[in-house]
Amino acid sequence: MTSFLLLNGPNLNLLGTREPGIYGTATLEDIVGEAKAYAAARGAELADFQSNAEGDLINALHAARGRHECVILNPGAYTHTSVALMDAIVATGLPVVEVHLSNIHARESFRRDSLISPVAVGVIAGFGAFGYLMAIDAGLNHLKAAK
Amino acid sequence: MTSFLLLNGPNLNLLGTREPGIYGTATLEDIVGEAKAYAAARGAELADFQSNAEGDLINALHAARGRHECVILNPGAYTHTSVALMDAIVATGLPVVEVHLSNIHARESFRRDSLISPVAVGVIAGFGAFGYLMAIDAGLNHLKAAK
Amino acid sequence: MTSFLLLNGPNLNLLGTREPGIYGTATLEDIVGEAKAYAAARGAELADFQSNAEGDLINALHAARGRHECVILNPGAYTHTSVALMDAIVATGLPVVEVHLSNIHARESFRRDSLISPVAVGVIAGFGAFGYLMAIDAGLNHLKAAK
Amino acid sequence: MTSFLLLNGPNLNLLGTREPGIYGTATLEDIVGEAKAYAAARGAELADFQSNAEGDLINALHAARGRHECVILNPGAYTHTSVALMDAIVATGLPVVEVHLSNIHARESFRRDSLISPVAVGVIAGFGAFGYLMAIDAGLNHLKAAK
Amino acid sequence: MTSFLLLNGPNLNLLGTREPGIYGTATLEDIVGEAKAYAAARGAELADFQSNAEGDLINALHAARGRHECVILNPGAYTHTSVALMDAIVATGLPVVEVHLSNIHARESFRRDSLISPVAVGVIAGFGAFGYLMAIDAGLNHLKAAK
Amino acid sequence: MTSFLLLNGPNLNLLGTREPGIYGTATLEDIVGEAKAYAAARGAELADFQSNAEGDLINALHAARGRHECVILNPGAYTHTSVALMDAIVATGLPVVEVHLSNIHARESFRRDSLISPVAVGVIAGFGAFGYLMAIDAGLNHLKAAK
Amino acid sequence: MTSFLLLNGPNLNLLGTREPGIYGTATLEDIVGEAKAYAAARGAELADFQSNAEGDLINALHAARGRHECVILNPGAYTHTSVALMDAIVATGLPVVEVHLSNIHARESFRRDSLISPVAVGVIAGFGAFGYLMAIDAGLNHLKAAK
Amino acid sequence: MTSFLLLNGPNLNLLGTREPGIYGTATLEDIVGEAKAYAAARGAELADFQSNAEGDLINALHAARGRHECVILNPGAYTHTSVALMDAIVATGLPVVEVHLSNIHARESFRRDSLISPVAVGVIAGFGAFGYLMAIDAGLNHLKAAK
Amino acid sequence: MTSFLLLNGPNLNLLGTREPGIYGTATLEDIVGEAKAYAAARGAELADFQSNAEGDLINALHAARGRHECVILNPGAYTHTSVALMDAIVATGLPVVEVHLSNIHARESFRRDSLISPVAVGVIAGFGAFGYLMAIDAGLNHLKAAK
Amino acid sequence: MTSFLLLNGPNLNLLGTREPGIYGTATLEDIVGEAKAYAAARGAELADFQSNAEGDLINALHAARGRHECVILNPGAYTHTSVALMDAIVATGLPVVEVHLSNIHARESFRRDSLISPVAVGVIAGFGAFGYLMAIDAGLNHLKAAK
Amino acid sequence: MTSFLLLNGPNLNLLGTREPGIYGTATLEDIVGEAKAYAAARGAELADFQSNAEGDLINALHAARGRHECVILNPGAYTHTSVALMDAIVATGLPVVEVHLSNIHARESFRRDSLISPVAVGVIAGFGAFGYLMAIDAGLNHLKAAK
Amino acid sequence: MTSFLLLNGPNLNLLGTREPGIYGTATLEDIVGEAKAYAAARGAELADFQSNAEGDLINALHAARGRHECVILNPGAYTHTSVALMDAIVATGLPVVEVHLSNIHARESFRRDSLISPVAVGVIAGFGAFGYLMAIDAGLNHLKAAK
Repeated sequence: MTSFLLLNGPNLNLLGTREPGIYGTATLEDIVGEAKAYAAARGAELADFQSNAEGDLINALHAARGRHECVILNPGAYTHTSVALMDAIVATGLPVVEVHLSNIHARESFRRDSLISPVAVGVIAGFGAFGYLMAIDAGLNHLKAAK
Repeated sequence: MTSFLLLNGPNLNLLGTREPGIYGTATLEDIVGEAKAYAAARGAELADFQSNAEGDLINALHAARGRHECVILNPGAYTHTSVALMDAIVATGLPVVEVHLSNIHARESFRRDSLISPVAVGVIAGFGAFGYLMAIDAGLNHLKAAK
Repeated sequence: MTSFLLLNGPNLNLLGTREPGIYGTATLEDIVGEAKAYAAARGAELADFQSNAEGDLINALHAARGRHECVILNPGAYTHTSVALMDAIVATGLPVVEVHLSNIHARESFRRDSLISPVAVGVIAGFGAFGYLMAIDAGLNHLKAAK
Repeated sequence: MTSFLLLNGPNLNLLGTREPGIYGTATLEDIVGEAKAYAAARGAELADFQSNAEGDLINALHAARGRHECVILNPGAYTHTSVALMDAIVATGLPVVEVHLSNIHARESFRRDSLISPVAVGVIAGFGAFGYLMAIDAGLNHLKAAK
Repeated sequence: MTSFLLLNGPNLNLLGTREPGIYGTATLEDIVGEAKAYAAARGAELADFQSNAEGDLINALHAARGRHECVILNPGAYTHTSVALMDAIVATGLPVVEVHLSNIHARESFRRDSLISPVAVGVIAGFGAFGYLMAIDAGLNHLKAAK
Repeated sequence: MTSFLLLNGPNLNLLGTREPGIYGTATLEDIVGEAKAYAAARGAELADFQSNAEGDLINALHAARGRHECVILNPGAYTHTSVALMDAIVATGLPVVEVHLSNIHARESFRRDSLISPVAVGVIAGFGAFGYLMAIDAGLNHLKAAK
Repeated sequence: MTSFLLLNGPNLNLLGTREPGIYGTATLEDIVGEAKAYAAARGAELADFQSNAEGDLINALHAARGRHECVILNPGAYTHTSVALMDAIVATGLPVVEVHLSNIHARESFRRDSLISPVAVGVIAGFGAFGYLMAIDAGLNHLKAAK
Repeated sequence: MTSFLLLNGPNLNLLGTREPGIYGTATLEDIVGEAKAYAAARGAELADFQSNAEGDLINALHAARGRHECVILNPGAYTHTSVALMDAIVATGLPVVEVHLSNIHARESFRRDSLISPVAVGVIAGFGAFGYLMAIDAGLNHLKAAK
Repeated sequence: MTSFLLLNGPNLNLLGTREPGIYGTATLEDIVGEAKAYAAARGAELADFQSNAEGDLINALHAARGRHECVILNPGAYTHTSVALMDAIVATGLPVVEVHLSNIHARESFRRDSLISPVAVGVIAGFGAFGYLMAIDAGLNHLKAAK
Repeated sequence: MTSFLLLNGPNLNLLGTREPGIYGTATLEDIVGEAKAYAAARGAELADFQSNAEGDLINALHAARGRHECVILNPGAYTHTSVALMDAIVATGLPVVEVHLSNIHARESFRRDSLISPVAVGVIAGFGAFGYLMAIDAGLNHLKAAK
Repeated sequence: MTSFLLLNGPNLNLLGTREPGIYGTATLEDIVGEAKAYAAARGAELADFQSNAEGDLINALHAARGRHECVILNPGAYTHTSVALMDAIVATGLPVVEVHLSNIHARESFRRDSLISPVAVGVIAGFGAFGYLMAIDAGLNHLKAAK
Repeated sequence: MTSFLLLNGPNLNLLGTREPGIYGTATLEDIVGEAKAYAAARGAELADFQSNAEGDLINALHAARGRHECVILNPGAYTHTSVALMDAIVATGLPVVEVHLSNIHARESFRRDSLISPVAVGVIAGFGAFGYLMAIDAGLNHLKAAK
């Protein structure tokens, strides 16, 4: 059974409680629940982890080796600043699907550069929480093609 | 019935005949056929157009008003150079899902800046031809949410 | 009788049908009609051409040699990207009055640089369709002074 | 009766006495006289002020509130360096038509950036002293449209 | 009773023990004590937290919602590198008064750019520990004005 | 008795009469009056001067030597352009507290760089007219510490 | 028999009729004729195509596959702006000899960067129409070495 | 007895298990063991700490004061992003020998700038795990010279 | 009799009273007196003017036409910011010898760019007040050569 | 009889002995011999000089005046760093044909800028040692046209 | 027996006679002598060469092929400017250990970029003359590992 | 008796024989002769050296220690590229007066930055060969003041 890790970065724990105009009213718990059901419907399982700390996210990536086949990563603000997270992806060798809820290309200019994208399998941005479901499909398709 | 326009930019007509290591062996015809079937299976229809000329792509976008609800656009190299295409998207007011076959963020640095992304609904990059199918799902979800 | 060519670039064919808050409700046809009448009232004639294709605009400039004494050019988005259009102006040797409907200096930063301005006689920006009428006056005055 | 203030910045007092090849042989007095007559013929009046001092130009802008409906401003070299003049335009709320005698876009690169343009109604550059007359027309048209 | 959170970033725990020529001989404990007394004298209370970890500071900001009306933040080195902290301020919606002990504008050039300032109410820099007391006044005045 | 000079730069004479949404409805006269009273309550006196001219501000700084112990300076737009004002601060050797009514870091990018800050004692920005009162406290504290 | 395609970009159709001081008095027809004769004398044939449209040049490159062994390309102004043309060269896999009539390195700075050069076999610039003849020799030598 | 702290940053815990082509097959444990033996052979002792968290590394540096005479630091990816770590080195006043296993100057351009180097005693890069042994020699020599 | 104008810009009126370590103890009056005597000994006369206002310096340059053959200009901080002063030199056509007391190339980087130098005859920097005497010699030699 | 000087810069003496995959197996001696024969067959003579020292190359250029009509120059790495060599070309007034064995535009970005090209007649790059023969043809054609 | 070449660049011949505060009182002769003894004690020999001329250093590198197994290079100021030296290292294929006496990262910003580092085995900077001894160890270890 | 070394860099040996419009008709020999006589008339002696080689100029600077009190240096093109020459000036500790015949600030932009100026006593540019005589005066005045 294919196993995903859904990894969410800083401030994503506040989803649904602030700025609903931008991020919707669903909480992170709602969204993760929907993703788990979506994965299950496709014969896969999905674990999740959220942290505001760069080091914890790196640790979670390290721990994913041998446990998960694919990581769905929303790095939040660390997208633009964390070389360490980029290195962790390369070091673990896990395929990573990068997801952003908002269209980061339509925001401040410093949000247009992602340190993660060059080492990710691919990027999905701008489709809200639906992007996590797209990422599950993308991950499954990627794993199938890589076999 | 929801109608999509799948718009492909320069050099994408050569898909399948050159650089199969990067872009696979499927021709553009194969890929479009698969997308049409995928759309049909979801109760939608999909028209397509490919051109190597910037002006033709703009004309096609203009003509899509009133005919299609959503555009799936792979702007190819015009991603990085065409302000006119960017303006056309804004001028027509159509929702555009931007798709790239390869992960443009893992290539030459000038390919990391997209003039299209800031005016698109969202971006999908790096998942090969499967990205077109994801774009259909994303477009349907976007239209449903916008209602 | 002095003859002008009024040359309009990409997306200007949509004038009046979209974004009336910015560009007004007059269509391109309305505006061109008004410009023709304005020219006629000053004893001049005015032909016009619009295209979304860079190559067609260059061809129109080439064809203007020997037919028109002055070109009024609204290059639209090609203002910022077309070295070929810039070269065409120099190559034809025709005096060009550059017009922009909106104040391009008050918009996105990449719209502040014009490749056309250094080879134009002068620039008029920000006065809406009235700028075309100002350009007719400017062109007539320029031709008179150049004699 | 519509009242204009024609405001000229540094070194424009030397017009006609130096570099006639570039700026013509008409003195500033000649040009202002012509502009006054042109305004009068259109039922408007035009006052004028020239100074080489940034502070005096700001003071003149401040004093124009309640006296003039529109300012025609040739900021000379302060175009490129005076944030204070830019702020004064915003602070007074007066519509400003920016005029340059020469085509500033065809000169040294530092002359291509105007701090004034983003807060002006529009810009006229490259048509010599005739640009002041165009500015009167543009100002009248702008005031009419704003009503 | 108005409640402040005084949040201190990396290396500020070493205050008073190193580089007294720059930062004075008062320890962080001394300074916090003085700030608490100053707040109390104005009928407010002040809690404090210091950490060298970016994630802990974000967690503290998140936890401040509903407990404190205003945050006084000395982000230390994270001023210049933490987009995540910037996002956390926006996400929590709390008014933040940014304080720096030293005049960061008189130091290395990379210390002149603050990622925090654009989302803070205001900034106080260069007045040493006295800046925390000024921040209390500024916070009280801000809260009064915002009512 | 400690004597302050409150020096206000270009366009600050218009306070209260324009853009009250940003700058409030208090006039410069109101604000200066409040500052004088605030200083008097702390046993200090405060003189003030406003000018739109860079040279006059420099002259005022020069004249402050021997008359005032501390200068509270709101350089307005000259913050970003006046090396001469920066040099005048160094040349007179007077301690300068830099104040900005608005949070300059949350505005256009060119307003984020201050030529004055590196030679000021410290900076206060974003707290409106209340910042002048904070500056009096900061100045008194600075003079006490410098003894 | 070796077959070349000589591909000329925008404005080169005006050769000989304008700016003879820079480009000589020979027309494009003269130059192509001379190149055909030169090729024939070396046992090769040479077809030619000129267009002002980026899309047409890309189409011509695509069509050259299987018909020509080598392309001699003078991309004109598209040298500096066309990523699509660059991609077309890579996609067709044809060896391209890049030729410029003038020494582009001795002109405006933006003409010093060629998007084409990194994917060309080599570059010849500054030798006028004689450069086309040199390109024939270079192409023949390249094909011989590649065997 | 001289005491070293060997401090290793993010992802270095994965040494030996991934990318052996670049980093060799020795694990971090192997390398630390070898360094301890090397130090012991020179009459010194060496403690070690590894963390993926920026805050933990800063805490470790703070705690090293009074316990160790010299720190050997491989900051990993924080080399390029952590101003806080740079400040911690200055704040603790401990001599730091910076070590990189790979030659960071021969990798991506963003890896060429180190925020740590300007505050380190010196830098050793490119010699693999042998660089830690060189750092012990360098540290001993530095401490001897500083006496 | 050759007549010089010695023009001194902002803050130079404070010479001798502040920062004697950098600028010496001679006042501007002393220095001008010495320059007058030096000129007189060479059969020339020298008038002088100092101002802290950009506009006054421009006015003085304008007034120098027809009165002086050569201007010795120490533009102070306006060296780096005044396009208007640069334009005034070109507009008056007077030969200008630029002098700086300190070696501006050994100070902050923004002091290395002079807007005045490109339109001056030549530049003398770093020789203190002696530079004014060198400028008199340079001016006399220049005028002799220009005859 | 036309006389060429073939001037080769640093490291070209190692041709054929290292990196044959890039530069081929022919030694510099082989290549020069072939060039001499090629020149002789066209009724010209060719002298050659190679040095690793910038000064020697400049001296050789100086000495070429009056002896040679044309210089074929492969400046090697000095292409990108030697302003002195650029000045020497201008100072001697000799026509220079710049040749590079490899396609410098397809290598590291710093190799794309040539200080020599703006003062050369033209540039040939990417055709290996065959480029020297092309340069002989180009030089002969240039000298014929210049007569 | 392993043979090293110790190559010292410009101004290093002055070691010990100037700026002893920075570089110590040992002359180059002293330092080379110590390095030779250190090498001998490890069963290796070390030759040395110093020159102020870029060309001589390149020649020395060329001559080292076949004579020495490893080069220890202190390129002095050529570190930052000599592409030719960089190319020479690649062309000779010799392993180079780059050494700097001072910590170049703590000096002027232009000293932070080394053209040599990307083609060196590794870099040692900031440990004074002791760095040469470390380089011998590093070279021996590198040669052992490369076998 | 004060002794000067006049050091001339690359291409200055060609003075008088090429580009007399810019550099005059006097040869370097003429100019040096005039400088020697000028020095002698002031009780000083002047030796001279010219070379096109960077290394030779550095050697000459080194050799000047103990022989000359002051160096007059026209570094020619090495002004803009030679860090080694800059370091040599610092290393020898000799006062250097930098002279340029032409006004380097009025030429290409890359000639505006001098690596030499920050370490020179002062700079004289734009006064032709007369600048050498000014440099003698400046050097004598500097040496007198330094005593």
